[in-house]
Amino acid sequence: MRAVEIRGFSLDQMAIVERPDPAPGPGQALVRLRAASLNFRDLLTVQGKYNPKLKLPLIPCSDGAGEVVAIGDGVTRVRPGDRVCAIFAQRWIAGEPTRERLRSTLGGPLDGTLTELAVFDQEGLVKVPDHLTDEEAATLPCAAVTAWTALQGITAGDTVLLQGTGGVSIFALQLARLLGARVIITSSSDEKLARARELGAAEGINYRETPDWAARVKELAGGAGVDLVVEVGGAGTLKQSLQSVRMGGTIALLGVLAGNTAEISLPLIFMQNVRVQGILVGPRESFEAMNRAIALHQLHPVIDRVFPLEDVRAAFEHMGAGGHFGKIVVRI
Amino acid sequence: MRAVEIRGFSLDQMAIVERPDPAPGPGQALVRLRAASLNFRDLLTVQGKYNPKLKLPLIPCSDGAGEVVAIGDGVTRVRPGDRVCAIFAQRWIAGEPTRERLRSTLGGPLDGTLTELAVFDQEGLVKVPDHLTDEEAATLPCAAVTAWTALQGITAGDTVLLQGTGGVSIFALQLARLLGARVIITSSSDEKLARARELGAAEGINYRETPDWAARVKELAGGAGVDLVVEVGGAGTLKQSLQSVRMGGTIALLGVLAGNTAEISLPLIFMQNVRVQGILVGPRESFEAMNRAIALHQLHPVIDRVFPLEDVRAAFEHMGAGGHFGKIVVRI
Amino acid sequence: MRAVEIRGFSLDQMAIVERPDPAPGPGQALVRLRAASLNFRDLLTVQGKYNPKLKLPLIPCSDGAGEVVAIGDGVTRVRPGDRVCAIFAQRWIAGEPTRERLRSTLGGPLDGTLTELAVFDQEGLVKVPDHLTDEEAATLPCAAVTAWTALQGITAGDTVLLQGTGGVSIFALQLARLLGARVIITSSSDEKLARARELGAAEGINYRETPDWAARVKELAGGAGVDLVVEVGGAGTLKQSLQSVRMGGTIALLGVLAGNTAEISLPLIFMQNVRVQGILVGPRESFEAMNRAIALHQLHPVIDRVFPLEDVRAAFEHMGAGGHFGKIVVRI
Amino acid sequence: MRAVEIRGFSLDQMAIVERPDPAPGPGQALVRLRAASLNFRDLLTVQGKYNPKLKLPLIPCSDGAGEVVAIGDGVTRVRPGDRVCAIFAQRWIAGEPTRERLRSTLGGPLDGTLTELAVFDQEGLVKVPDHLTDEEAATLPCAAVTAWTALQGITAGDTVLLQGTGGVSIFALQLARLLGARVIITSSSDEKLARARELGAAEGINYRETPDWAARVKELAGGAGVDLVVEVGGAGTLKQSLQSVRMGGTIALLGVLAGNTAEISLPLIFMQNVRVQGILVGPRESFEAMNRAIALHQLHPVIDRVFPLEDVRAAFEHMGAGGHFGKIVVRI
Repeated sequence: MRAVEIRGFSLDQMAIVERPDPAPGPGQALVRLRAASLNFRDLLTVQGKYNPKLKLPLIPCSDGAGEVVAIGDGVTRVRPGDRVCAIFAQRWIAGEPTRERLRSTLGGPLDGTLTELAVFDQEGLVKVPDHLTDEEAATLPCAAVTAWTALQGITAGDTVLLQGTGGVSIFALQLARLLGARVIITSSSDEKLARARELGAAEGINYRETPDWAARVKELAGGAGVDLVVEVGGAGTLKQSLQSVRMGGTIALLGVLAGNTAEISLPLIFMQNVRVQGILVGPRESFEAMNRAIALHQLHPVIDRVFPLEDVRAAFEHMGAGGHFGKIVVRI
Repeated sequence: MRAVEIRGFSLDQMAIVERPDPAPGPGQALVRLRAASLNFRDLLTVQGKYNPKLKLPLIPCSDGAGEVVAIGDGVTRVRPGDRVCAIFAQRWIAGEPTRERLRSTLGGPLDGTLTELAVFDQEGLVKVPDHLTDEEAATLPCAAVTAWTALQGITAGDTVLLQGTGGVSIFALQLARLLGARVIITSSSDEKLARARELGAAEGINYRETPDWAARVKELAGGAGVDLVVEVGGAGTLKQSLQSVRMGGTIALLGVLAGNTAEISLPLIFMQNVRVQGILVGPRESFEAMNRAIALHQLHPVIDRVFPLEDVRAAFEHMGAGGHFGKIVVRI
Repeated sequence: MRAVEIRGFSLDQMAIVERPDPAPGPGQALVRLRAASLNFRDLLTVQGKYNPKLKLPLIPCSDGAGEVVAIGDGVTRVRPGDRVCAIFAQRWIAGEPTRERLRSTLGGPLDGTLTELAVFDQEGLVKVPDHLTDEEAATLPCAAVTAWTALQGITAGDTVLLQGTGGVSIFALQLARLLGARVIITSSSDEKLARARELGAAEGINYRETPDWAARVKELAGGAGVDLVVEVGGAGTLKQSLQSVRMGGTIALLGVLAGNTAEISLPLIFMQNVRVQGILVGPRESFEAMNRAIALHQLHPVIDRVFPLEDVRAAFEHMGAGGHFGKIVVRI
Repeated sequence: MRAVEIRGFSLDQMAIVERPDPAPGPGQALVRLRAASLNFRDLLTVQGKYNPKLKLPLIPCSDGAGEVVAIGDGVTRVRPGDRVCAIFAQRWIAGEPTRERLRSTLGGPLDGTLTELAVFDQEGLVKVPDHLTDEEAATLPCAAVTAWTALQGITAGDTVLLQGTGGVSIFALQLARLLGARVIITSSSDEKLARARELGAAEGINYRETPDWAARVKELAGGAGVDLVVEVGGAGTLKQSLQSVRMGGTIALLGVLAGNTAEISLPLIFMQNVRVQGILVGPRESFEAMNRAIALHQLHPVIDRVFPLEDVRAAFEHMGAGGHFGKIVVRI
């Protein structure tokens, strides 16, 4: 089988290699992967910025979808022919994240999904909603589950602030709409804001034109502020996010696109009873619950662009350029 | 002013009377009521079946909408001209119900909304979403808030079973759709099921044709059962409701149309980890949260029929006949 | 190895037999069991009353403790020498119960703990708090975890009503005290009530002397009723439990000692906003959280009597007689 | 009556003045205050650092206890002779904090408790547990309720990290023990750590001797970190607090003793699934729930020192010096 390997921490040292075909042991399934999708974490991993201690060579990417082609003894959850996604942390089935569970994360430390074949424990797979293509299904495991987790507690009539039009934010937009919430979204591009509105955003703010966007968010939210900010920007945005949220509201802190360290005004948190909640994808149970919603509403993930496996480097470079709208997919 | 009074516990002893116009004290608002809506509880109250110890004469009905026409000292929450609903239990603003809070329920023990004028504490009022007529707004305080409370915890992709097409069930249908849930509904009438489907129900079951509807519900819910049953039938339906719900699911028990005493199989509860949750309307905070959802989605309550004040007895008889679809309203 | 087998559904057909020693496969541990404890469910299982379709022969009992004596490949959670308990449903690690997870319950459908040796998946084991004997540890998996689950949401200052002095109720008493709650307990025996007081119960009610105990409970709870009833009696007690609980309180419904079918007054549930919550043991995560509490407070389970393996029938008969206070243990 | 007034923003401009005795209106109670307690917020208020826009003159302090001496029409919650505390935000009865509710906070913007007589709405009072002195009761409204709120979700067996020995931290210590939790506490003084151990702390860390206390906390918490940090230090401690908490744990952010702005490492939040929860005292419902716990366990607040009203300035200076252990009280 062919697979993509990181042999050293740079895009230059990522290569397509031949590896022997794996075989499923007891309780395992062999999956022929058809598509993988990229997350910002995958780019950081290849660059050695996510975890420079990772053992190489490593097959990158946590997200992928494919078809079960063989099963080992005792497998009851899936059958050959089933279309499946692998879950982000293979042993995180339910409950809270733990170090032990996260040690089973695909794309580091475990080999990931940029491979033609892979063996997974049957517990580490979920079935794909029927209406999705393989490319669409491949976008779900990290970005969509993260967005779903970030939206927990949001109900119809609530207002959610989203930042930018990357994979997580666009999933958060689509899923927030399923939950009946109102979405305000920021971007540097009026064209992207227009596309976000087509997907259901009520309001768009061009942060280039409105650098003090927090004031505009509050105004659009009726003065009190939004119920939830899905914070993806980090140091560059957290201050205004804290100004945008209502008393008693939540900042779901997902990751950082710009700077690991932020200077924050603590009274904005404790005087406002605000909750800053770190979000770390979610367990299989959340993935399955989200899939029920996706299936019921026939939601289609937004794919920015699909690259063939041979152009995998271009896919990572496209992620690095940051101009995408939705998910970047590699067809395998 | 004119008001409807219960002078003895029967429809025969309900009459339209003249009472002196009230005036607002400190912290109070005088409201000119434009419409009231009926709940089954109001019929039971008139008949003396709800609480035979209630002091008479009493103005019936908990639900109404109108316009603030005057305010007392220190009123800041509303202004003359505001369109408002009175809340079900006037002192239940947030938190759990208590006996003390419920002693402030309109339509018994406090005078209710079938009156041209009434004085309410400013804390006991909520503003009406702009897109609603007075008749529509008058349907919200008891039935819609009850449905909203019953749906707490329901999220996109969940499946909800509703029973019949009375006021609470039709609100639960509309609100469950806002939350992204899938609705299965039962009725004795194919025509009503067709109307429920127009409102967004995914499936309808005619319980005349399918008396063993629990089996059909499970089938429609993919074998495992539904996440929530909004139980309004009582003794006549609870057994099948317990058979319809999934392991770990919820039965929201709202009231009883048929029999106060039910024989239930306890293992259906504890072997299935089922929760039977008694539901008692909700506080003002829930009403306000629901109104945000109603306003955002421009939801219009379903009104079965509007009666003029003079025909108030006919309105109660129509409620008693039980053939309505949605809410019964009295224009004042 | 020796094991107890149910060969037919009666105590007469339970026997001690020789079986070949099992060996651990990948991810599994071999455990030498030192003690098992009985639950009412185990007696019903032997009598064919719990699930008459169970495949025989079967090793009964879900609860046991022992020592890891060998491990298979890839085992990291336990090492030889570790003292462990097996969890009730072997694949229920976290999250909600599901049919699939419950199919891994020990003592039916899977072979249980009344055996000298058994092989468990490493995920199905928890470590024993150091201060406990094997007999004490063997009491935890079903009864203590059930009590812990039933008490979720209880906090310091709350009042809990317990029924009788069986294994679950005595654990609920001890654990409720750790949580800072006040306990009222019922029994038919003044002597047992005295022992319950020694364990921290604030009040005891002899239900023989006070058959209308609900009134007395309300009085002791200051008129409003208790926050939680841990209901173990079923048909014989549920009516008074519903009268004992406060508005907005909870009945944790655990199982039935007396009658599967109860006639209940529905208004007691919906007019009081009461929650009736079916309880089904709990996942490994709950067991581990409980063990942290047991270890911190050096709590010792209350053992009614320890039987040698040879007298296992007498142990079951003792359970059937119903006069025990705390847990019945079999030493292996 | 005599009262303390802030006439300008400095301790120098705080004076004891004569004001006319107030009289209760409808729904109100007149309370003869016997004791008030100080919070750091009160000191900041006097110094003009909390809210320099506050209208003066103002009677400072949110916390006080006394006796109802007269009631207005329609008062049912209290009677003359009742011993009561005023609640922090007079209109925050239940539910979430809102701007409107917080505008009713005592000691700014409303007149506070450093006065011989005050009129409160009956809804803004709670009864004092019988076993408490007036001085003890006066310590509860802000500090104890804040600690109670911060501990929500903590259960028996959990580990809590507390910082220093000020009023909130010592209440958190006492209340965490009632909940069955284990407490690790930091201080600059071995003597204070010894006193904290007497109150039930399991471990004390002298942060002078161990400036890198986070490492020690993790070690004491078994390597994974604590379940909850009650963060009172602000900029000086937040970094180490984030290093001390377990994956999925909580930082309850209460206020800042040292610096409003902190530089924080965001990955410590999102890679660890940590929740940073701003805490803002709590509603009357929380106060009442806490009082049930305090009464059941006969908990006595820890009073550092009681000052007579005449020495009120010394009391504020003592607060400013920061060496106290527990609460500072003024007898009125």
